[in-house]
Amino acid sequence: MTYCVGLRLDRGIIFASDTRTNAGFDNVARFRKMHVWELPGDRVIVLLTAGNLAVTQSVVSLLDEGLARSADSPDAGPSLFSVSTMFQAARLVGSTLREVHRIDGEDLGPEAAAFSASFILGGQIKGEGPRLFQIYDEGNFIEAGDDTPFFQIGEHKYGKPILDRVAVPEMRMGDAAKLLLISFDSTLRSNLSVGLPIDILIYRTDTWHVGEQRRIEAEDPYFHALSEGWSRALRQAFANIESYTNAD
Amino acid sequence: MTYCVGLRLDRGIIFASDTRTNAGFDNVARFRKMHVWELPGDRVIVLLTAGNLAVTQSVVSLLDEGLARSADSPDAGPSLFSVSTMFQAARLVGSTLREVHRIDGEDLGPEAAAFSASFILGGQIKGEGPRLFQIYDEGNFIEAGDDTPFFQIGEHKYGKPILDRVAVPEMRMGDAAKLLLISFDSTLRSNLSVGLPIDILIYRTDTWHVGEQRRIEAEDPYFHALSEGWSRALRQAFANIESYTNAD
Repeated sequence: MTYCVGLRLDRGIIFASDTRTNAGFDNVARFRKMHVWELPGDRVIVLLTAGNLAVTQSVVSLLDEGLARSADSPDAGPSLFSVSTMFQAARLVGSTLREVHRIDGEDLGPEAAAFSASFILGGQIKGEGPRLFQIYDEGNFIEAGDDTPFFQIGEHKYGKPILDRVAVPEMRMGDAAKLLLISFDSTLRSNLSVGLPIDILIYRTDTWHVGEQRRIEAEDPYFHALSEGWSRALRQAFANIESYTNAD
Repeated sequence: MTYCVGLRLDRGIIFASDTRTNAGFDNVARFRKMHVWELPGDRVIVLLTAGNLAVTQSVVSLLDEGLARSADSPDAGPSLFSVSTMFQAARLVGSTLREVHRIDGEDLGPEAAAFSASFILGGQIKGEGPRLFQIYDEGNFIEAGDDTPFFQIGEHKYGKPILDRVAVPEMRMGDAAKLLLISFDSTLRSNLSVGLPIDILIYRTDTWHVGEQRRIEAEDPYFHALSEGWSRALRQAFANIESYTNAD
């Protein structure tokens, strides 16, 4: 399983992804699910991946090969560095996913449905504001707006209540990072197939370069304090609500 | 969908269930999912149901018919009023569920897997302490212990983090009821197929009668205050955690 979140704010976009993959409970590995393409001064594009690792790695490799091809020849078709909008970037990721399904699907036969993938794509290309998309296994996609400023892929349920209650476009980046990490903390506690470390990336509007990118390990003192503090705060919040009855 | 919780405490057992059923988003109805059998002074047995309504109603009807039969003739096989332990009651519910699957399964053919059900069964029969079980679609079951004092069926994920953090066997009943309602509040907000009203039942150890049973409607002032208060408390708890960075 996987847990990834992208949150679009007035100040920019913040991304977070876990790093655990598993083929059964007894076959666990660590893989990066956050992929970044940057042309400083022109664009930052971030892709978070969930689902079958063979599919998501193929998509990323094909996107990388597209970059190399379009560097050699400008007529080689669109690449993440040649598209002029994030909408075009989302179409490119969607069509690349469809290509992978087409190549592998025939040989997978009736098992093909198990080889699904989904993505969160966000970033900014000069000429428009920052944009955030969720791309489905079918290759189509939706874009985040002010009503729903975040997308989650993978194991989304445990970490959703706090996002629903707290996420607003006006948030400061430091608070948004805290929010995403609390959402991860709830997910990590409840689903063994989501695991540390967490990759986190902060992109600030109109900077066109990656502001901050970090890997948060299990022993990270901030995450440790946040996890402890959130448990304590939740129990305190619980204690402050009036009991259903005063009866013992 | 459905959300039901049973929580076994030192002081007794508390049960809660929602009342929404749906066959598609455009076909929503209200059905009680909490069923109670009481022999005052001897036993209280509570059954919470999730899954296909045709299956769960058949199970309850067969259990009721078993009671009538065993009242007529003591040799008519076990009933919820004749079994001597909660373990035997769980076996009876499990075998009744298997009977329903046997009767209907053949005609359902390959669709049979969609007609699944699960249960939380709890209560106390004179001669032993209160016990709580979760019964699977296969008719087998597990019993709650001190390490995991609660069971959830249906849409369990949204409401689990707060249960994981707060539920302990030593809780007072008023706090346990508050906890279950907060867990319901998180679930109601995130899953449209779980809906008010909520049925809640409090059973106190060694009383052998239903202590308190109530239906909590949308306009219930306590639930309304709890829902508002919990949102406020969560946001306050969030604000009290240190930000990830002080950067804007």
